[in-house]
Amino acid sequence: EFELALEEVKPAFGVQEETIEAAMPWGIIPFSDDFMKTKHTLLTLVNQVKNSESTRTLSVLLEGAHGSGKSALAAHIAKTASFPFVKIISPDKFVNYSEMAKVSSIAKTFDDAYKSQLSLIVLDDIERLLEFTRVGLRFSNHILQALIVLAKKAPPPGRRLLVVGTTSERPFLQEAGGAAAFNVHLSVPLVEGEDDVKAILTHRQRERHDFPEEQIQMVAKALLEPLGIKHLLQTCEMAAEVCRPGTITCDAFLDCLRDCGHQ
Amino acid sequence: EFELALEEVKPAFGVQEETIEAAMPWGIIPFSDDFMKTKHTLLTLVNQVKNSESTRTLSVLLEGAHGSGKSALAAHIAKTASFPFVKIISPDKFVNYSEMAKVSSIAKTFDDAYKSQLSLIVLDDIERLLEFTRVGLRFSNHILQALIVLAKKAPPPGRRLLVVGTTSERPFLQEAGGAAAFNVHLSVPLVEGEDDVKAILTHRQRERHDFPEEQIQMVAKALLEPLGIKHLLQTCEMAAEVCRPGTITCDAFLDCLRDCGHQ
Amino acid sequence: EFELALEEVKPAFGVQEETIEAAMPWGIIPFSDDFMKTKHTLLTLVNQVKNSESTRTLSVLLEGAHGSGKSALAAHIAKTASFPFVKIISPDKFVNYSEMAKVSSIAKTFDDAYKSQLSLIVLDDIERLLEFTRVGLRFSNHILQALIVLAKKAPPPGRRLLVVGTTSERPFLQEAGGAAAFNVHLSVPLVEGEDDVKAILTHRQRERHDFPEEQIQMVAKALLEPLGIKHLLQTCEMAAEVCRPGTITCDAFLDCLRDCGHQ
Amino acid sequence: EFELALEEVKPAFGVQEETIEAAMPWGIIPFSDDFMKTKHTLLTLVNQVKNSESTRTLSVLLEGAHGSGKSALAAHIAKTASFPFVKIISPDKFVNYSEMAKVSSIAKTFDDAYKSQLSLIVLDDIERLLEFTRVGLRFSNHILQALIVLAKKAPPPGRRLLVVGTTSERPFLQEAGGAAAFNVHLSVPLVEGEDDVKAILTHRQRERHDFPEEQIQMVAKALLEPLGIKHLLQTCEMAAEVCRPGTITCDAFLDCLRDCGHQ
Amino acid sequence: EFELALEEVKPAFGVQEETIEAAMPWGIIPFSDDFMKTKHTLLTLVNQVKNSESTRTLSVLLEGAHGSGKSALAAHIAKTASFPFVKIISPDKFVNYSEMAKVSSIAKTFDDAYKSQLSLIVLDDIERLLEFTRVGLRFSNHILQALIVLAKKAPPPGRRLLVVGTTSERPFLQEAGGAAAFNVHLSVPLVEGEDDVKAILTHRQRERHDFPEEQIQMVAKALLEPLGIKHLLQTCEMAAEVCRPGTITCDAFLDCLRDCGHQ
Amino acid sequence: EFELALEEVKPAFGVQEETIEAAMPWGIIPFSDDFMKTKHTLLTLVNQVKNSESTRTLSVLLEGAHGSGKSALAAHIAKTASFPFVKIISPDKFVNYSEMAKVSSIAKTFDDAYKSQLSLIVLDDIERLLEFTRVGLRFSNHILQALIVLAKKAPPPGRRLLVVGTTSERPFLQEAGGAAAFNVHLSVPLVEGEDDVKAILTHRQRERHDFPEEQIQMVAKALLEPLGIKHLLQTCEMAAEVCRPGTITCDAFLDCLRDCGHQ
Ligand SMILES: Nc1ncnc2c1ncn2[C@@H]1O[C@H](COP(=O)(O)OP(=O)(O)OP(=O)(O)O)[C@@H](O)[C@H]1O
Ligand SMILES: Nc1ncnc2c1ncn2[C@@H]1O[C@H](COP(=O)(O)OP(=O)(O)OP(=O)(O)O)[C@@H](O)[C@H]1O
Ligand SMILES: Nc1ncnc2c1ncn2[C@@H]1O[C@H](COP(=O)(O)OP(=O)(O)OP(=O)(O)O)[C@@H](O)[C@H]1O
Ligand SMILES: Nc1ncnc2c1ncn2[C@@H]1O[C@H](COP(=O)(O)OP(=O)(O)OP(=O)(O)O)[C@@H](O)[C@H]1O
Ligand SMILES: Nc1ncnc2c1ncn2[C@@H]1O[C@H](COP(=O)(O)OP(=O)(O)OP(=O)(O)O)[C@@H](O)[C@H]1O
Ligand SMILES: Nc1ncnc2c1ncn2[C@@H]1O[C@H](COP(=O)(O)OP(=O)(O)OP(=O)(O)O)[C@@H](O)[C@H]1O
Ligand SMILES: [Mg+2]
Ligand SMILES: [Mg+2]
Ligand SMILES: [Mg+2]
Ligand SMILES: [Mg+2]
Ligand SMILES: [Mg+2]
Ligand SMILES: [Mg+2]
Repeated sequence: EFELALEEVKPAFGVQEETIEAAMPWGIIPFSDDFMKTKHTLLTLVNQVKNSESTRTLSVLLEGAHGSGKSALAAHIAKTASFPFVKIISPDKFVNYSEMAKVSSIAKTFDDAYKSQLSLIVLDDIERLLEFTRVGLRFSNHILQALIVLAKKAPPPGRRLLVVGTTSERPFLQEAGGAAAFNVHLSVPLVEGEDDVKAILTHRQRERHDFPEEQIQMVAKALLEPLGIKHLLQTCEMAAEVCRPGTITCDAFLDCLRDCGHQ
Repeated sequence: EFELALEEVKPAFGVQEETIEAAMPWGIIPFSDDFMKTKHTLLTLVNQVKNSESTRTLSVLLEGAHGSGKSALAAHIAKTASFPFVKIISPDKFVNYSEMAKVSSIAKTFDDAYKSQLSLIVLDDIERLLEFTRVGLRFSNHILQALIVLAKKAPPPGRRLLVVGTTSERPFLQEAGGAAAFNVHLSVPLVEGEDDVKAILTHRQRERHDFPEEQIQMVAKALLEPLGIKHLLQTCEMAAEVCRPGTITCDAFLDCLRDCGHQ
Repeated sequence: EFELALEEVKPAFGVQEETIEAAMPWGIIPFSDDFMKTKHTLLTLVNQVKNSESTRTLSVLLEGAHGSGKSALAAHIAKTASFPFVKIISPDKFVNYSEMAKVSSIAKTFDDAYKSQLSLIVLDDIERLLEFTRVGLRFSNHILQALIVLAKKAPPPGRRLLVVGTTSERPFLQEAGGAAAFNVHLSVPLVEGEDDVKAILTHRQRERHDFPEEQIQMVAKALLEPLGIKHLLQTCEMAAEVCRPGTITCDAFLDCLRDCGHQ
Repeated sequence: EFELALEEVKPAFGVQEETIEAAMPWGIIPFSDDFMKTKHTLLTLVNQVKNSESTRTLSVLLEGAHGSGKSALAAHIAKTASFPFVKIISPDKFVNYSEMAKVSSIAKTFDDAYKSQLSLIVLDDIERLLEFTRVGLRFSNHILQALIVLAKKAPPPGRRLLVVGTTSERPFLQEAGGAAAFNVHLSVPLVEGEDDVKAILTHRQRERHDFPEEQIQMVAKALLEPLGIKHLLQTCEMAAEVCRPGTITCDAFLDCLRDCGHQ
Repeated sequence: EFELALEEVKPAFGVQEETIEAAMPWGIIPFSDDFMKTKHTLLTLVNQVKNSESTRTLSVLLEGAHGSGKSALAAHIAKTASFPFVKIISPDKFVNYSEMAKVSSIAKTFDDAYKSQLSLIVLDDIERLLEFTRVGLRFSNHILQALIVLAKKAPPPGRRLLVVGTTSERPFLQEAGGAAAFNVHLSVPLVEGEDDVKAILTHRQRERHDFPEEQIQMVAKALLEPLGIKHLLQTCEMAAEVCRPGTITCDAFLDCLRDCGHQ
Repeated sequence: EFELALEEVKPAFGVQEETIEAAMPWGIIPFSDDFMKTKHTLLTLVNQVKNSESTRTLSVLLEGAHGSGKSALAAHIAKTASFPFVKIISPDKFVNYSEMAKVSSIAKTFDDAYKSQLSLIVLDDIERLLEFTRVGLRFSNHILQALIVLAKKAPPPGRRLLVVGTTSERPFLQEAGGAAAFNVHLSVPLVEGEDDVKAILTHRQRERHDFPEEQIQMVAKALLEPLGIKHLLQTCEMAAEVCRPGTITCDAFLDCLRDCGHQ
């Protein structure tokens, strides 16, 4: 019976496979203990939803700075949890939707999930789903309320549901009452300190061969402020282009970092 | 004639039975005197509506922190009062409703109740019904006004009605004029102090056998801040998963508590 | 001809009889001089509208705290004035109405009144008709403006109209410009001091026989803060239930008072 | 040709006759020099519109406290100017109108006026036409803008138009930009000092014979604060009722004044 | 070919001729050097649009106090520039228009202009086009944005366009971003000082013969505050009426000035 | 296959050619090192999108004061990048569009771009696209959210996209969360210092022959404040008109500068 349900929803899941891969173009690099701990706790929660008798629903909020890798981590969990129903609700599906159409679409996804025995829904970039902006603290209260209610709602008897939300606007979400709708809150860390930087750049270098080891060392020393792993990797691409046809130099890297508004 | 009315509305009541049970997955644990006093006063009010000649309508507001057990207590009363008409108005029925549709649906429920001799309506999570958020103090004024009027309105001659509301935003509701629509205000207490914690965890342990007595003692001593019974019980589940296949340790429990944003 | 008009509107008036009675379940208890003076002035105004040559329209605002008895007093006047056309416009008729539908319905009532020689319209709980809430000072400006204009508007030649409004939000109504639309402003007093309390409880005791005289004395001494007569009488019912099958004790009464959020 | 136009619009004017009379139930009492000066200036402006070659349009704003007699004075001018087209635009025609319908109706009136050689439009109680309230400074900006534009707009060649507006919210209208749309600003004075009061009460006494001369003297001495002539005359009616079947006493008068919220 | 285009649009221009004349009932009096300089610069800009190769579009903002003569000056330019397409967009055309209809109509006028080789569009009283009011700083942002875009937009190849805007709310327009849409900003000066006043009143006297020279001298000396030429000329009309059948006296003039709210 | 796609979209591109030329009526003058550096970095980014394996999408924000040349620079890149799909989204296309129609049109442009292998979209004058105004900080949040999502969204597999935005309201865009949607932020510099001014005026003089060298020298010395190249060139045209039929003098130039509100 379980296998059957898994069968049934496969087409839907198939569609998402592409979305999942697109969310982590550089894969997942195990760059620090903090990051590994967050990833591990997430997996425990996946198991809790699968196994616990009294916990048939759980909601987890991944919070972290821009570019820290929240979407990638959520996608990674969506991929590895291998639940029969998996859906990433992401703001780029909703350009051109009215507020009410958005709420309907989100509610529909939850209704679909309730038909499967074991489901995972990712609410990616919640502040964007809410059309949040700091100027005037505007946002869609209807969508916020729908998310709060759906994240807390118990699925029908016999069904299990894990909700993973991501946000880089934790203080707002807290104040708005959205954070309390999530049972567990996990931080996605920034890249911070020489070791983190070296781990990432060396990992990348193994495939790309365009960033000499000693330049990596110099960059790792020069980076004083923590930054998001996405921004670190993006800057590498830009630096590679600037230095083409040569290899990346520390100076070019730092120039690009400045143009990208980091450091 | 009375029995007849009871018969008539049974289908509606039957539908609610499931909702009622879902609201208290862990049942009701008699964990403190304060809690027992609140429960007892509620039962007195149930009787007042049943018996008093001049009081044919009463509205009670259960107020308490998140997870303190307001919804469970309201459901418990809904179950034990055994009124012929019982309805829980809960925000998760209303995702995707427009403001006006919500008001209509709520008004319809009251109209239905007026057709039964003895009715109980639970307005669960009033701030959520109102789509309240602290950011900009937004909420649906139309729904607020409908609730105020309906909570104060006398049922037609010969009919009796008890309204039970729950809220964790008492100060807002007070300021907004919603609290004054309820005749009686009762506090649902938090779990506070060693004895409360021990009472709850020991009660749970009798069924689950995964939390050794001495670890419970250590946890009870370590918990300094009051917290909601829902959060205490949820944390047990998470800790059980973390410690699987072993039994729950105090340390694992406290770690989970932190991940869940409590303490 | 006059008798004819009276005949014509009788059905409408008949419908209101029930509403009028429902507004004063405990009747009108003559509990203090202040209260009697207010009632007397109201009757003078009724006569002025009936008799004066130049005053064919008058509007009176009854202002007082929650539960002070404004609605009951307005209903009492509506009953005793014995005008051919009497209508109580009360917020519980309007749940589920849009703003424009409310304005239409209110305007329609005034138009109906203009067809009778002598009419009385009660605008009960004006702040509720306006959907007023202190949070953000929200209210329906359209309804406010309609009420201001209608309360000031002269009826057609030969017609006479008394408008009685009630409010517990006098400062707001003043600031909003609504109070100035009423020619006369009368205060409905709270129950204050031993004598008032004794007068009321003794009056009630004569019918109910459940509140021993010496307990009444103790309660009258213990009540330090003024409170609304509605709240005093409601608390009696709750205390009667709590003390059942015995008679009401002062202690039980004071406990109930606290649960009801008074004192 | 002129006479013809006068003929044409007579029906419309006829309809207004009743409105004009209703606006001054107590007529116009010449109670002070200030008042007479204001009235005289108004008449000069009427002549200017009738005669001046370069002034074919004029707009006058009558400003004064509540009850000072603005509407009555505007109606008096509307009556005595004997223009072929006269229209009083008053808020009680607009209950139940949407904002856009109000603007349309007002614009239509001006269009009608442009068809007559000589027209007078009264914009009575401008703040009420604008649905103004001090709470939150709400008002209809669309209606405000329409009034500003219409009050400044020149009529078609050969047509003459006098616009008379009344307001008791001058500071708001000034700040909102509405006052500047009127060429001339005239103040309607309050009743102030013994002589004013005596002039009015004695004038009234000549017809009503219910207010003994010595009581009038006492009242005139007792009134310290200035008040509107409307309120003074209304209070007389109430006092007459209170003192019935006797004549009005100074004490009864002052009591009534207090109930009416004046002094 | 040029002549042809001129022919084509003539009907449209013809319609405007009346509007243009109505905007300057007292003509244009050359009353001060400042005024003449502003007028001269405007004419230079007219020529620049006609002749310059790289400047095919120019937008000029005439700013000045109420009544300073902005609309008259814009109309004067519209008349003397003798462009084949001339259109005055003025708020009194738009009473009763919705926001969107206004934007459409304005955009349509620009589209029409783009069909002529040489066009002049006057945006008269921009703050009124925007329905601006200082109370709550309300205005139509849609219309503002349309004006900004249209004032900056280059006409199609081969077409030339001059846009002249007028405003008495320069600081608001600046802050709102509307002023920056105009390439050139010119001030229209007030009447200030004896010489200005004398120049204007003497000029008027030559035609009207109702203001004796020595009275003009006295007025010129008495006027201490600068004022708009429109207000000065309007006051003359009122004073003429007051003094009829005599000639204007300085005292009567100053009285009228006060009634009109100036000085 | 690549050539094919290029073929397919050519008509669309053709249409834009005119728009691109219209954006730089004075061409691009290489007036300072800062400007050249910004231009060069832009070209590097164009190459990165063309060549990099992991960067298939990039978004660049050009920020600078009014008239600094942002739109011209974006158009220049659009011209020289020679991508098969090029589209400038500019606010003057959207006058008369509703908010939702704007979002649809913008989203449609991105959808079109996703059909070409290599696309460039210019979001010109973002604050105008958003209908931003500083008064009340109003803007279209729906359009803002759409732009944020579209600027970050990855194109379908195999497609490459460069987004270039321009803004003169960087602080607002930053606060609103719009700036973070762009990977790279580049400043477009003002004309500052004698050398910049001389470079530009001399460059212009080579074609126009109306600005004598020694007058250019004097102007360059006199200009103390930095200003936009657009404003510098516009002022030249106005000065040329003023001085016609002579050549431009420094004094005339500075006068014009003042009339245009610069310096
Ligand atoms: N350990 C890691 N965790 C997360 N992402 C990683 C990790 N290692 C590499 N990545 C890569 O880093 C990028 C992280 O970007 P991602 O879009 O997830 O960040 P984000 O926090 O969601 O940013 P935003 O706040 O803009 O939504 C992805 O491309 C991913 O492949
Ligand atoms: N004595 C008790 N009172 C209330 N709930 C109890 C009690 N004992 C056990 N429980 C369990 O604790 C949980 C209380 O959660 P509940 O949802 O009622 O909290 P809540 O206050 O409504 O939270 P929220 O503010 O999030 O709505 C229920 O699962 C219930 O079964
Ligand atoms: N003297 C009295 N005046 C008014 N009400 C009285 C009096 N004596 C007894 N009552 C009873 O007291 C109650 C007064 O309640 P009522 O609803 O009129 O108060 P209220 O001021 O309108 O309250 P609210 O502010 O909630 O609308 C009624 O049930 C009425 O029968
Ligand atoms: N000299 C007078 N001027 C004006 N009204 C007078 C005068 N003498 C007597 N009255 C009477 O006084 C009353 C004035 O009331 P009116 O409604 O005009 O006041 P108002 O200023 O318009 O009040 P509101 O601010 O409420 O609109 C009328 O009934 C009018 O007949
Ligand atoms: N030199 C002059 N400049 C402008 N107007 C003049 C001049 N001489 C005479 N006038 C007359 O003065 C009047 C100016 O009024 P106008 O309506 O143009 O002022 P405005 O500044 O547009 O006022 P508002 O701010 O109310 O729109 C016109 O009637 C015009 O005929
Ligand atoms: N080096 C240059 N960079 C940019 N523009 C230049 C340059 N040299 C000459 N120009 C000319 O200067 C003008 C720049 O104006 P442009 O409209 O691009 O400014 P902008 O910053 O977009 O202004 P706005 O803030 O008003 O949109 C164009 O006409 C362009 O041809
Ligand atoms: Mg993300
Ligand atoms: Mg609850
Ligand atoms: Mg009441
Ligand atoms: Mg009036
Ligand atoms: Mg003007
Ligand atoms: Mg630009």
